[in-house]
Amino acid sequence: MAEENEACQDRCYRIVRKRLPILTWLPKYSLQWLQADLVAGLTVGLTVVPQALAYAAVAGLPVQYGLYSSFMGCFVYCLLGTSKDVTLGPTAIMSLLVSSYAFHDPVYAILLTFLTGCIQIALGLLRLGFLLDFISYPVINGFTSAAAITIGFNQIKTLLGLQNIPQQFVLQVYYTFCRIGETRAGDAVLGFICLIALTVLQQMKKSLPRGSRLEGLFIRISHLIIWTTTTARNALVVLFAGLVAYSFQVSGSQPFTLTGTTPQGLPLFKLPPFSKVTPNGTVSFGNMVQAMGAGLVVVPVMGLLETVAIAKAFASQNSYQIDSNQELLAMGFSNFLGSFVSAYPVTGSFGRTALNAQTGVCTPAGGLITGAVVLLSLAYCTSIFYYIPKAALAAVIICAVAPMFDIRIFYTLWKVKRLDLVPLCLTFLLCFWEVQYGIIAGVLVSIILLLYPVARPQIKILKHEVLLIQPGSGLNFPAIEFLRDTMYKQVFSESRWHSVILDCSHVSSIDYTVVLGLSELLQEFQQRRQSLIFIGLQAHVLQVLTAAELEGFCHFPSLKDAEQSLGEDLCSASEALLDDRDNILPASGIIQ
Amino acid sequence: MAEENEACQDRCYRIVRKRLPILTWLPKYSLQWLQADLVAGLTVGLTVVPQALAYAAVAGLPVQYGLYSSFMGCFVYCLLGTSKDVTLGPTAIMSLLVSSYAFHDPVYAILLTFLTGCIQIALGLLRLGFLLDFISYPVINGFTSAAAITIGFNQIKTLLGLQNIPQQFVLQVYYTFCRIGETRAGDAVLGFICLIALTVLQQMKKSLPRGSRLEGLFIRISHLIIWTTTTARNALVVLFAGLVAYSFQVSGSQPFTLTGTTPQGLPLFKLPPFSKVTPNGTVSFGNMVQAMGAGLVVVPVMGLLETVAIAKAFASQNSYQIDSNQELLAMGFSNFLGSFVSAYPVTGSFGRTALNAQTGVCTPAGGLITGAVVLLSLAYCTSIFYYIPKAALAAVIICAVAPMFDIRIFYTLWKVKRLDLVPLCLTFLLCFWEVQYGIIAGVLVSIILLLYPVARPQIKILKHEVLLIQPGSGLNFPAIEFLRDTMYKQVFSESRWHSVILDCSHVSSIDYTVVLGLSELLQEFQQRRQSLIFIGLQAHVLQVLTAAELEGFCHFPSLKDAEQSLGEDLCSASEALLDDRDNILPASGIIQ
Repeated sequence: MAEENEACQDRCYRIVRKRLPILTWLPKYSLQWLQADLVAGLTVGLTVVPQALAYAAVAGLPVQYGLYSSFMGCFVYCLLGTSKDVTLGPTAIMSLLVSSYAFHDPVYAILLTFLTGCIQIALGLLRLGFLLDFISYPVINGFTSAAAITIGFNQIKTLLGLQNIPQQFVLQVYYTFCRIGETRAGDAVLGFICLIALTVLQQMKKSLPRGSRLEGLFIRISHLIIWTTTTARNALVVLFAGLVAYSFQVSGSQPFTLTGTTPQGLPLFKLPPFSKVTPNGTVSFGNMVQAMGAGLVVVPVMGLLETVAIAKAFASQNSYQIDSNQELLAMGFSNFLGSFVSAYPVTGSFGRTALNAQTGVCTPAGGLITGAVVLLSLAYCTSIFYYIPKAALAAVIICAVAPMFDIRIFYTLWKVKRLDLVPLCLTFLLCFWEVQYGIIAGVLVSIILLLYPVARPQIKILKHEVLLIQPGSGLNFPAIEFLRDTMYKQVFSESRWHSVILDCSHVSSIDYTVVLGLSELLQEFQQRRQSLIFIGLQAHVLQVLTAAELEGFCHFPSLKDAEQSLGEDLCSASEALLDDRDNILPASGIIQ
Repeated sequence: MAEENEACQDRCYRIVRKRLPILTWLPKYSLQWLQADLVAGLTVGLTVVPQALAYAAVAGLPVQYGLYSSFMGCFVYCLLGTSKDVTLGPTAIMSLLVSSYAFHDPVYAILLTFLTGCIQIALGLLRLGFLLDFISYPVINGFTSAAAITIGFNQIKTLLGLQNIPQQFVLQVYYTFCRIGETRAGDAVLGFICLIALTVLQQMKKSLPRGSRLEGLFIRISHLIIWTTTTARNALVVLFAGLVAYSFQVSGSQPFTLTGTTPQGLPLFKLPPFSKVTPNGTVSFGNMVQAMGAGLVVVPVMGLLETVAIAKAFASQNSYQIDSNQELLAMGFSNFLGSFVSAYPVTGSFGRTALNAQTGVCTPAGGLITGAVVLLSLAYCTSIFYYIPKAALAAVIICAVAPMFDIRIFYTLWKVKRLDLVPLCLTFLLCFWEVQYGIIAGVLVSIILLLYPVARPQIKILKHEVLLIQPGSGLNFPAIEFLRDTMYKQVFSESRWHSVILDCSHVSSIDYTVVLGLSELLQEFQQRRQSLIFIGLQAHVLQVLTAAELEGFCHFPSLKDAEQSLGEDLCSASEALLDDRDNILPASGIIQ
């Protein structure tokens, strides 16, 4: 009795620990870890604040919403996350998606966060994370490359201080070039200076030697200074631009477009809005959901995809395991609770996660520090944000999205697998029109490319003393008519084959449509007094065929057994030919 | 020059002959064939006339539209068809679909015919016939069984003479039983007599011995009489019922619901309607198309499916070949031209095709006679149709659809392949709600069942002296994460494996996402100073992997070669185990 109780307790504790990964690492927490987490958390915090202000503009929301979105994810992930490196928060791609589906309206954005959270939690609880596997790399790459261009170009107008440029990408490009003469000199000069500064600092960081290898106090101190400067470059550049703007303001003139007033203080903890009051009456929950449409699929799925991909990448780099379904739950709860503090949907940020890992974070507790930095800046620094020039934030975004555009993939795919260029190009081009069309079209085309060999498997045909037919992969219902047509062409066009052997070694499953097709084939063989012999049936395929009680069904484990039983010399040449892997051809190019 | 010209002419002639199969059989036409075609065409004609009147009621259209739909298909198929047996015309299933999508309005029905024809011609020209392969047998069976019940039950109210019963299936069942007390005695008695007569004649025909085996003039004449009576049973029963109704009419009382006035004469040859004038204004082409919605996919596809399935079945039974794409074109032109003579969509009729084959038709010319019978009855017999009791037509339909309901399939699938019960039951049940939902849901579920093993292939794992991992089927992008997870669990959880062998014998194609996943795996192996060795790569898979220039990529043709090269004894036990086909298990059940 006591033993049973103990076993039950043990199981419960294991389940709780699986669902609350903090219980695994917290008991082992040490002072050394705390130090590392403090430094990493602070570093990420100094990056997320300027990025949050900038991404809010990409999402088409007032700047404070970027900060509102930046802390809840850190806290929730600390409790529920299984990767030490991942940091959740606003990202360039998610901001672009929010700007498409939330109509630049915080009410829609917060409802989208709430629903995204609910959908992600549901996917996690139903263990549907495997659905993400159906988004192939070319689709992801096509989307991120298109997003990088869209987001980057979107910032050009801010960098140049142009006003009233339409949102739609093609129109945006057109009007930006048309009205390039209206460029505001102050914004443009400051923007380009920030851009250059950020690029130089980024390159410096890349070429910086590892600190641990250095000797001598002076060298180590100067290394530390350079490391800090290059790592906190976003914060420093924005701070510097803000100071310049402030000094101009004090001197009475203002050549820059400024961020302007940001409401001070933390967001209230309240229920997300389930309807919207407008001058023309109330928009109901149903209508809001309908307006967001495909966004309710695209936002949760892309969010999950980004987080899981990042978590897997860093888990693999730093040799630990993550639990995909637990990651879905962590994401889901971050968004669900985020919607109570007016956040827009968050996801794992590649750039900040990399920064977190490089700075040497030891546990997800680093997120607590990051979250605290965001909360402090919301509480005390919003008056400073007034002076941040928009052009400086635009420079921060351009530097963040530039590495996302990957031109080499086109060359790589051309070299490695040209067929994959189809989903890549389709996704890439359609994403400029509408993000969801690009992703959906890419996924559909990938699935069609996946289904084509299922419907038209390679069929190896060997004409020697006996006709040997071998489907190169599985035999599923879309392929049975094709197999029958091939058989007709090969077998019934010439009457010299007394027996035909169907080699099912590669057939790992079989369905009733196939069984029916085979049964009709067998009947036809019997009518023509020819025989169809099955070889190489796997155990459960044989089970299905036996259960179907096919008339005239005859099978042998291998070609040798068939030979022995039929008393013919079927094998000799056949095996030699079948072993030669270069001879696998689609049925259209038959080995004669 | 002359030779070239001749070769070109020859090729042209072959293409023309492929597109106009009549050119193949007409030159060989003989008097004997003519005799057989005459008898068969007449027999089918006597069946199609009463069926056409009845099916028009199923489609919710005035009776003459059944006849309008019955001749064009016969003529066009004679020119373009590749099967001697198939006869096109109104069928129970197509009539049910028309009643769903044409709103009981001839204008919609004719436009639907036109668009169906255009879509089918397009599918034929684009050689998209293979799309039909994605409709599996359980989906077709679920649909036809549901259609048999819907159509059969739909006729019960007519058989009983009930009025004003709603169309929706569930309501229809409810109200038919509620108002069973309102049954009209005359209709019910006549209906059941017709039903019994048809069933008895059908059974008689089944048990009739073959005429050719009989001897003696008297026996042969009585056999001929019985054969004629049982074969033309539909026409005879309807004629008998009409005579009874006529004699009642003459005597001054009428206990039956009659067909009523049918407009005399042939339909005009005119453009199909592209808009509809209503009292509330004109309904535009766009709005009509929108109203028909999914019907524009379901009607052409189901029509093609029925025709191709029937053509293949009879081609196989009578040992000839059909050309699926030419069948699509024949169907398409039948509908396209049919819409000019006010036809509703037609397709191959299983019952009449079987009758055609049994009567011994020799060429598609039999269709000309069938078409002529229909035209003659339209020109001269419509005044007789006035007296046909609706209950008699209902009996004809019930007898035609009864064999379509197949209860044994549920038992067969339970025995042979239980998973296929899912699309079957889903299609069957949803078809009672809306036909398109049933078919679409069935097809989607079939595709998911098809994709599941693509995403989660069986992975054979063999732990002996070396770790051997073998994907049981292809390796496509949805499976790569699964393969990696399996690898992590197997390889990195224990450090005792120095080298791991990935056997790709069953992998017939590879995409870039997989290449990327493998490249990351290779990196990880290198980091851990373990080695990953590929064996059994097919030629083009190897080509892709070589083009990708993976770091640390090492492959051997077979396990033996790997063994020789690595100087280890990898094979001995491994091969024995791998050959044992019962050991193929999903990764969750690993062979230790």
